[in-house]
Amino acid sequence: MSFVELIDKHSATLKAAVEANAARQYFAHWNESPSKKVYGETAAEEGEAAFKALLHHKFTRLLQTNEISWHGEEESPFGFPLGIHYPLFAVEHLMTKAHNAKMQWQTLSPLERACILIETLEQAGTGKTFFEIAHATMHTSGQSFAMSFQASGPHSFDRALEAIALGYREQAQFAEETTWTKPVGAATITVKKHFHIVPKGVGLVIGCSTFPVWNTLPGLFASLVTGNPVIVKPHPKSVLAIAIVVASMQQTLRDRGIDPHLVQLAPDSSANPLTLELAEHPAVGIIDFTGGAFGDTLENIGRSHGKAVFTEKAGVNGVILESVDNLDAVLDNLAFTLSLYSGQMCTTSQNFFINKHGVREGSAVIPFDDVAQRLAQKIDALMQDPKMSGIAGSIQNATTLDRIQKARELGLEIIRDSQPVVHSGFPHARTASPLLLKARVEDHDIYEREWFGPISFLIPTDGFDHSLHLLLRSLRRKGALTTLVYTIDKAQREQAEHAIIFEGKAPVAFNYVGGIFVNQSSAFSDFHGAGANPAGTASFTDAAFVASRFNMIGAREVVR
Amino acid sequence: MSFVELIDKHSATLKAAVEANAARQYFAHWNESPSKKVYGETAAEEGEAAFKALLHHKFTRLLQTNEISWHGEEESPFGFPLGIHYPLFAVEHLMTKAHNAKMQWQTLSPLERACILIETLEQAGTGKTFFEIAHATMHTSGQSFAMSFQASGPHSFDRALEAIALGYREQAQFAEETTWTKPVGAATITVKKHFHIVPKGVGLVIGCSTFPVWNTLPGLFASLVTGNPVIVKPHPKSVLAIAIVVASMQQTLRDRGIDPHLVQLAPDSSANPLTLELAEHPAVGIIDFTGGAFGDTLENIGRSHGKAVFTEKAGVNGVILESVDNLDAVLDNLAFTLSLYSGQMCTTSQNFFINKHGVREGSAVIPFDDVAQRLAQKIDALMQDPKMSGIAGSIQNATTLDRIQKARELGLEIIRDSQPVVHSGFPHARTASPLLLKARVEDHDIYEREWFGPISFLIPTDGFDHSLHLLLRSLRRKGALTTLVYTIDKAQREQAEHAIIFEGKAPVAFNYVGGIFVNQSSAFSDFHGAGANPAGTASFTDAAFVASRFNMIGAREVVR
Repeated sequence: MSFVELIDKHSATLKAAVEANAARQYFAHWNESPSKKVYGETAAEEGEAAFKALLHHKFTRLLQTNEISWHGEEESPFGFPLGIHYPLFAVEHLMTKAHNAKMQWQTLSPLERACILIETLEQAGTGKTFFEIAHATMHTSGQSFAMSFQASGPHSFDRALEAIALGYREQAQFAEETTWTKPVGAATITVKKHFHIVPKGVGLVIGCSTFPVWNTLPGLFASLVTGNPVIVKPHPKSVLAIAIVVASMQQTLRDRGIDPHLVQLAPDSSANPLTLELAEHPAVGIIDFTGGAFGDTLENIGRSHGKAVFTEKAGVNGVILESVDNLDAVLDNLAFTLSLYSGQMCTTSQNFFINKHGVREGSAVIPFDDVAQRLAQKIDALMQDPKMSGIAGSIQNATTLDRIQKARELGLEIIRDSQPVVHSGFPHARTASPLLLKARVEDHDIYEREWFGPISFLIPTDGFDHSLHLLLRSLRRKGALTTLVYTIDKAQREQAEHAIIFEGKAPVAFNYVGGIFVNQSSAFSDFHGAGANPAGTASFTDAAFVASRFNMIGAREVVR
Repeated sequence: MSFVELIDKHSATLKAAVEANAARQYFAHWNESPSKKVYGETAAEEGEAAFKALLHHKFTRLLQTNEISWHGEEESPFGFPLGIHYPLFAVEHLMTKAHNAKMQWQTLSPLERACILIETLEQAGTGKTFFEIAHATMHTSGQSFAMSFQASGPHSFDRALEAIALGYREQAQFAEETTWTKPVGAATITVKKHFHIVPKGVGLVIGCSTFPVWNTLPGLFASLVTGNPVIVKPHPKSVLAIAIVVASMQQTLRDRGIDPHLVQLAPDSSANPLTLELAEHPAVGIIDFTGGAFGDTLENIGRSHGKAVFTEKAGVNGVILESVDNLDAVLDNLAFTLSLYSGQMCTTSQNFFINKHGVREGSAVIPFDDVAQRLAQKIDALMQDPKMSGIAGSIQNATTLDRIQKARELGLEIIRDSQPVVHSGFPHARTASPLLLKARVEDHDIYEREWFGPISFLIPTDGFDHSLHLLLRSLRRKGALTTLVYTIDKAQREQAEHAIIFEGKAPVAFNYVGGIFVNQSSAFSDFHGAGANPAGTASFTDAAFVASRFNMIGAREVVR
């Protein structure tokens, strides 16, 4: 089996992606715009029709057999059941199939694997499928349609390509074969050496309900490109989007003569989750996990069994608001960040450490309470702006509404209450706009927890140093995916950059205004998740994220 | 503080080492020959004199203060006490000093760190110091002088340079700064980004008694080049060689304006070992360990606390002997392998799976017992050859003699008994020549354990497939640093290569004869320790060995 044709077809893409990883500049292989100009006149309609045709049926696209039963429990957060049933499989069956698929896959070269995987992305990354995945994402995660399209389509696929490129580079940096000739006096000793890339084991990727594709593809493709077969266990309430991707990949693999069980879907149910049984299976060598506190359990299981574990767990993201050029621009930016997908992004800010003496704007000082009120008003305006009606999306999980209620009852001052959001066309959508609470510094036990969803705390501090101290304290205890600092003082900026990065071990953004937001993370440029603080061990995509998924093992023979 | 001069001085060396890592061909920055032509007329005498001057004194070269007491327990396996006392330090004191040293070191660029570290190697890697280190190694590890010179001098230093080069490459592959400009409609968004390399924490390197420098430098330099300060805890019975290296590094660092506490020595005593207290300290982010079963404990401690752990533990190295071109040449090679340093290398073969119907040599079949006898005779000849008198060295630890006695009493047939070895000039040397025992296939419980020292088992099997099955069984249970297969059958060779590498996850050598031996491992070419089987998690030097010692964390700011 030769893959010369695919290598010819995709080498340029691979090379461009490798170079983009190094340069960290703007790079996108897939266009993020869901426009007809980009994806064709009919893609949107075809994608939507394909999605609708899946509703209330068994999902039969997977090239996996021997299911033990069928199950489905997905409901659109926009207010209707999907009625789709997925096949459930026995863990041992999945492992056997994965093992068989590994036999061929591990013998291919890194270049072959990379180009075959790019082919799976190209086949799935068409307009029609992107639109289909977008509807599937919208009606499982509750994201707006625009966000669903970008996050699960082009942005996910670029993250996948990023992982392929770095995984390829890390493997291909060493010569596959060499002739080693050592001078020994007047003579020489010659040894022929062949270095094999040996996969770590079966890769297990455990998806989350809010970003079922975006958070799944990096681990999936990092494990695949380094020779490991992968089992994807989606969140039982958010299966469809990744099921469409996996089914498409299986089809492409089969068409190219590869065992489609290289990538398997392992749906389960909320009543009988498969996570632990899969994670503890001795064949599993790598675990990628996105989710909440269960990540701690998985880290312990994985590590104690010598598995490589990459997690993105709960983090508590903080903002310092000290001094600004233009407070209106800052509050516009923050209002958008808090409203986007109702705060259900792992990168959304939760805690705002604000100088209690007020925020400096030029020569003025805006009192804390005024800042708080103006932020609340900005959010009100966003929520009422018909052009921005989709921004909040809907609430993926009803427990988030319970959490909002619990937050309301904390006894803290409510700066802005959460309210339902109107979505035209979806009268039964589960929605909630941002809740803003005022917390005291000493309420550590409250705000140093993750309050997943549209819940934020504004905390008056003694000033910049105090704010930084509180942020660092939280970073050490709970970690974070993002931090954001507003100061126009250069010394404070440098102090914060050094402390947050080297002590807090979290990324930091400064003075964000305009059309870029702290909860955004760009493939090929931003390392997503530092992998260095309590919020998780994964970073998309640094060298450690790919390097521990394979070993280099040599065969050597004397040449006489 | 600028290091332009050192960058100018060492960039070419760094570049050559980076290229050698990729090509895996023969490369040596330091000459392995202890000859006057290479290292000068006086180096040998000066080095020996320097060593002798250290005996029976306090070791005062370290630039560390605040010792709480002095202690020394080293005795030469060649039969005399060294009488050297080392300063002992409190763990908290070491950690504070390491933390302080990190403050400057972590802000240097990877290129600066690499070139400063190469300077420390160049300053220590002179003839005089190599000879001094050689005597120190000989009289702590029991290695022969020639082996001590090569293993602790040029070969160690090349492994250090290898780790520096790969660590540099893994860090420098990403742009340090970039301007990210994204087109958004007709406009653009521009973000300036700075990616910081953040060290994992304090690196702890725990040395072993038999290769006090060779097994210490890779982890030491891998941690240093990636920004981490390091504490080296040597084996209390084998301190001197690495103490000389650390002291020299501290001197060079201080001369260059770097806090010498970047590398600290943490001597301890057999009675009050510091290992656990150091390993469990929260400031320690990385643990490198070489040794025996205690590695399991350290792996558990380290992993459960989220530390990166690299171990080389006990492995059980196997040989398959099936068919050969020239049995004499093969047995010469094996006799040397078993005799070298009396089997006290982690790479020495222990178990020989030999076809019970005999070993094919051309058209002849040599019966098992004849093969065994001829191997025994080859070892006898080596032991009696005055030119080879140093080969066996001496026995580092008296418990190895106990182990030989225990092996004798297993009730297995003794093919060749272990005997004292005469070393001219060292009448009180603790020595032992190889013990060869014949074990039955069913004696798994015996031969699937590591019998550290000159103890080997010859196991008659039903043939090649059976031998391979037994080797794989052992690899899965105990792992190995090396395996060696003799077969002239091409299909068997391919079968063994695939099975040992992909199932056993251990390196394999084929048909070794002549002046190259399975227990040798060459910097820049052989990956030492697969890091993939139960014998350990470290591989000198693959990408995983350096990549998880640092994180990439970004700072970003909108450009308006």
